[in-house]
Parts: sequence; structure tokens; C-alpha cells
Amino acid sequence: MAILVTGADGYIGWPALLKLSREFPDERIVGVDNFARRRWVEEIGCVSAIPIHSMQERLEAAREAGHGNISFIEGDLTDRAFVQQIYATFRPRVVLHLAAQPSAPYSEINGERATYTQHNNVQSTSNLLWGLKEHNLIETVFVETTTTGVYGQPDFDIPEGFLEVERNGRKGSVIYPGMAGSWYHMSKCHDVNNLWLANAKWKLSVIDLRTAITYGTRTDETQGDPRLATRFDFDFYFGVVVNRFAAQALAGFPITVYGKGGLKRPMIGLQDAVDSIVSSAKREPNQKFDIFNQTSGPVGIQEIGEGIQTIGAEMGIPVQVDHLENPRVEKEEHQMVMENSRFMNELLPHPTVDIMDGLRDTLESLQPYRDTLLAYKDRFVPEQLLNRVSVA
Amino acid sequence: MAILVTGADGYIGWPALLKLSREFPDERIVGVDNFARRRWVEEIGCVSAIPIHSMQERLEAAREAGHGNISFIEGDLTDRAFVQQIYATFRPRVVLHLAAQPSAPYSEINGERATYTQHNNVQSTSNLLWGLKEHNLIETVFVETTTTGVYGQPDFDIPEGFLEVERNGRKGSVIYPGMAGSWYHMSKCHDVNNLWLANAKWKLSVIDLRTAITYGTRTDETQGDPRLATRFDFDFYFGVVVNRFAAQALAGFPITVYGKGGLKRPMIGLQDAVDSIVSSAKREPNQKFDIFNQTSGPVGIQEIGEGIQTIGAEMGIPVQVDHLENPRVEKEEHQMVMENSRFMNELLPHPTVDIMDGLRDTLESLQPYRDTLLAYKDRFVPEQLLNRVSVA
Repeated sequence: MAILVTGADGYIGWPALLKLSREFPDERIVGVDNFARRRWVEEIGCVSAIPIHSMQERLEAAREAGHGNISFIEGDLTDRAFVQQIYATFRPRVVLHLAAQPSAPYSEINGERATYTQHNNVQSTSNLLWGLKEHNLIETVFVETTTTGVYGQPDFDIPEGFLEVERNGRKGSVIYPGMAGSWYHMSKCHDVNNLWLANAKWKLSVIDLRTAITYGTRTDETQGDPRLATRFDFDFYFGVVVNRFAAQALAGFPITVYGKGGLKRPMIGLQDAVDSIVSSAKREPNQKFDIFNQTSGPVGIQEIGEGIQTIGAEMGIPVQVDHLENPRVEKEEHQMVMENSRFMNELLPHPTVDIMDGLRDTLESLQPYRDTLLAYKDRFVPEQLLNRVSVA
Repeated sequence: MAILVTGADGYIGWPALLKLSREFPDERIVGVDNFARRRWVEEIGCVSAIPIHSMQERLEAAREAGHGNISFIEGDLTDRAFVQQIYATFRPRVVLHLAAQPSAPYSEINGERATYTQHNNVQSTSNLLWGLKEHNLIETVFVETTTTGVYGQPDFDIPEGFLEVERNGRKGSVIYPGMAGSWYHMSKCHDVNNLWLANAKWKLSVIDLRTAITYGTRTDETQGDPRLATRFDFDFYFGVVVNRFAAQALAGFPITVYGKGGLKRPMIGLQDAVDSIVSSAKREPNQKFDIFNQTSGPVGIQEIGEGIQTIGAEMGIPVQVDHLENPRVEKEEHQMVMENSRFMNELLPHPTVDIMDGLRDTLESLQPYRDTLLAYKDRFVPEQLLNRVSVA
């Protein structure tokens, strides 16, 4: 039996690969990646704060640490022939599709990057879905990490699953519509459409993990050998809000909260994200389109800024919080209510990351890489905002 | 001033180009096409029943008929540079985006055709949208013919516009979710997502015409010179239900109704489709995402079969109606209720096509091409169904 992990070189993909190998010692854990994330981050002029090693070095270290059941194949999922070859060779019982160009600002650099992002993400998923159909692998469980960003900012409570609608006295159940705020996020709405269709037409078992903002530097499996570390992005394009704030604080750069910072956003710690992905790989095919909101709960942006300030003070690091005009399409005072009880009950019964502990761990484990953060501190905010931030 | 028409070589695109040229004599009407539709139909082994001429011959005939303001540029909309060149040259005040691979069964021949269809359709739209943004053409009105197929078959009345949702006492308005039943139709759901986003982020004025099944052979402008005729597809892949039934009847091939034929589907005559597209080109930018259900109303599939039988009898042609197992994901007894009053009031105040008149005109105008229909009658139904049809 085999489990396929796409995006296995990524921030979540690499620790997921390691944990899967430990949890399923009798199965082959097959990672694929085209190393595009390394190139994108290089392209926008930044690096991973925590040094990451070549895949060859990573795999050597994994073998030494007892992960003997990992295979890795380099390839591009937009190449249909590559996907077919993987399926024909391994016939996976589970596909964990984590690969994507995941940056909203990167996807909106220009139209070329926007169409590239949607092409890259949607064609990869489409090739993976059709490949299952064409290789008689409809019993395979297909898990994708989409994003809580598909929901946009509705004025009603966000369901964990389908949406009930009533019009003129007639009722029905529909999928949540694509209301994402960026061309990247919208690529995941397109994916959700295709996942729904693959389930409706072929009865493919689909688990759609709507992944929240994922923060943190490490998991149980990435520690002990520096070659096992996962990447940590802190730039404007690829650094998600919590990770970027932690990096800014350590570099003595003000934390740049957009607007009033009153927004609460769904979050999840890296360890919890990985644990719940592993849980999803334990599920039997059920011919359903199962949607989970992969978040342990919402956290306020201002709260994160203040939390980092508090922890910074404990560590002897002064942290300044600045407010910048919000460049995104967001309702400033929007109160997001997102249901996540199915996710917590079924996929994350034992969460381990609390936001303050997570922030503390992030700041502490990042401290050795302060020189890197300082060297790239012009990458924290986009060029047009740099002159509006007062660097201490 | 200029109006851009994509898919200008197509079934609706060509008559729309001609009518626009007449309605807007002081504007330049710019058609673009890559002639892909001609290749797709050739690829599946069929032809247009009504012969269509080369674009050069079409344009010569159009000039002779007084259409002096038409320009045509051959090119592929998935090629970003081509789109940019068109925008830089013509700076259109309206874009009428009619180009797409529009066949559901063609999109599901295999995974390669599925991903090709979505790539072709979504990247074209994305290039057209971003091109407007990047050429400072946000005042341009962007009109796309999507499809009523984006709605799927909900158990509630289909709105003409946004959907009101209430959950736990909180209310909101969302776009209708992508619930399409094929990979082609889903490509239009992806497009709807991107249209909504372009409007939300940039305030682009978008008119989303959810085009119903369009039937008929001709419009006011395509008659009088055979070089001005528009294409007429009657094969399983590209012939829509009404047109294919008319062709089958004339070829002495039974009309193949899927299932009980109880389904009602939204329809529109070709002349009405073209007239409403011309109406949309008269609208001022309003910074809205305006959705119209481009249908003059629902018609039962069984009703069409019987209508053709009746007209056939008048014309001395015996017509047989057969029932085949439905190969599509459809609820057999589904009663579709689709609102269309905004469309009728604002874009089609003077409809000219009634279903029985439309069927009669289609049968009469197709009769001279009976030899072509006979030569390709093995293309009416897919290979796997051919042996289950009793040919009279």
C-alpha cells in the first residue's frame, strides 16, 4: 500500500511526509515535488529563515532517523504523463494533495503570475483527479488542503460542509460558493468545484481540508537533525501573517498590522496541521465530499501583535506594533464565525498547539537565524509600503 | 470606439459580429478567433451541416453586404501576448467574450481533453480580465456568455443574480456556487469565480450572460449570401439538443431522448441570443457584477421531440422518438425553475423566436443539407449507444 504526498518539499508537506512514514510504517510513503516553492521564494528575493537542505540530504537524514519507507520522485503535476506514471507505479490508497502556489500577493504581482498560479494549481489537481479515474483508482481517498480563504467574508456563520438554501418555499443544499479575495485563493475555489464534480460524477471519496493560516517552525519529526528542518518563510509574499510578525519582531522591524487589526482569522499550529493531515490518511473511502475547516480557532491579528510584544519583552526584545492601510479586499470590522467542530472531533481530537505557546516556540526557535532575518528585512513589506514604516 | 468579440468564427459569435456591425456603424467591431471549433469538430469526425466559408470569404461577403466596420484578427486567447496586443491596438469599450470550448461530452472524452478544456476556457478569460486591468481599461464593460449549466439542478428556484443565505440568524448574499455537471460546464463556474473577483477587486463592470441551450440556423444578418451563413453542428459532441434532434429527424434517424424526456431545460433561439448580446453592448459601465439568465424560458425535451414530429408530419417526414438511458448526471424528474425576468426586461424586450416557429424554421432551412446529415448520421449518438438505437 502507498500514500502519495504532493508538495513533499513544502512547509507542511515535508513534516507531513515524515510523520506519515512513522504512523504508517508498513506502507510506502511517496513524496513528489518539483521544487517550485524554492524557486518562487528565490525569485522574489528571499530565502527560508531556517536553512533547508537538498532533498537528497533530507532523505539521507530521514533514513538515518528511521524513516525507511519514504520514496521521493521529482516532477511537475501539471504534466499529465508524470501523474500517470506515479499512479501506475504506486497505485496509492490515499492521495494527500498539498502542492500549490500558495501566495496571494505572489499571484497578484501581475496577470502573468495570476494566470500561472491558477494554471499551476488547477491543472495539477485536475490531472490528479482524472488520473485516479483513468487508472481505476476510484477507491482511493483524495485529500486536498484548500484554504479557509475560499469563504471570503460572509455576514453569516461559515458552515463546515454544505450550505442550506431556501427560496420561495423550496429548499436545497449547495456547496459554499467561491468568494475568495485573491487569484491564488480563487484557484482553490476552482479546485473545490472540481473536487465536488469528481465526487458527484465518480463517487470519489474526497476530503477537502480548508486549511487556516498555519504557523510555527517545527514538528516532532523535524527536530534533532538540522537536515530535517522544514522551511520558514517570512517575506511579504510567502510568509503568512503569524510567521512574518515573529520574524519582524526578532529583526527589530515594527510588526505591520493592516488596518486596525480587529480582524480575527482562523489559524492552526504546524504540528496540529500535520497531525490532522495524518488523521485524514486513516479514513476509509466513504464516497462523500467531506469538508473540514482545518483550524483550531480564530485569533485576532492585534492579539498576535500584542502576544509577540509580551513574549518579546520576556526575551528582552523590544517589539513595536504599526498599523498600515490594508491593501487587501477585506471588511475591517468583519467578525468571522467559522464552524470547526467536525474537524476538531474527527481529525484533531488532541490539539497540541496553543497560540501563546506557539508564538513563544516560534520566536525561540527562530532566534538563531536572526542574521538571516536582518539580511532580508526589506522583504517584510511590499516595496510601495517600505517608506511608510518607521524602522526602530 | 471599438467592440471586441471573441469567438467571432463561432455559431453565435459570427452572427453577433454581423449584427453589432449594423447596430454600431460608427464603431470598429473587432473579431478574434483561433478557429479551434472548426478543428474540434473535424477531430471528432463531423462537419457543420450548413457549409461555412473561410473567414476571408465571410469578411468579403460581409463587406459586400455593407458591414464595412469589421476587423478580424486570428489568434489564441490563452496567449497572453496576443490579448495584450489586441487591447493595446483597439482599447475596446466593450468586450464580448463568447470564445470557449463549449462541449460537455468533448470535455469528458478523457482527462487530457478535460484539463485542456478548462485550461483553454479559464486562461482565456483570465488573460482578458487581467489585460483590462493592465491596460487601464477598467471602464470597459466585460460581457461573457457563461452557461445556465453552472446552476446544476438545485431543489429551489434558481435566482437571476445573487443568492440570499441565512444561518443561525445571520444573513448574507453570495454568488451562486459552481454545481455544474461536466468538466466543460465547470470551466464556466471557474470563470464566474474570476469574473466575480475582477468585479470585487477592481470594480470592473461585468455582465455574466448565463446562456441557455441555443437553437436555430440563422439570423437576419446571416441570410442572403451563403458565405454569411453560421455553422450548424448536429453531432453528439457539439450539436445541442434541439439542433441535433432536428438533424436526426431529417436524416430519418430516431430522435434519441435521454430517459423519460420529462426534463425541462432553459432555451433560447439564435436570433434572440444575438439580439440580447447586442443589447448588452449598449450598457454603460456600472461597476456591478450583473448576472442575467439568457433564456426565453424552459422547454421540455419530450415537447421538442413531439414538436419535431408534428412539423415533420406537415413536411411529409416521418419522425420516430426513442428513449435512451441518460448518460449524464441529471435528476430525471427535476423541475427547473429559473428566473429570467431581468433578462427579458433589460436585454430582450422584444423576443422574436417561439419554440414551434423556431423548430419549423430550423427544419426547413436544414432540408437542403440532408445529404450531409445522412453522410454523418453515425455521429448523432456516441459509439457505445449506436447499437441500441433502432434506425428506421
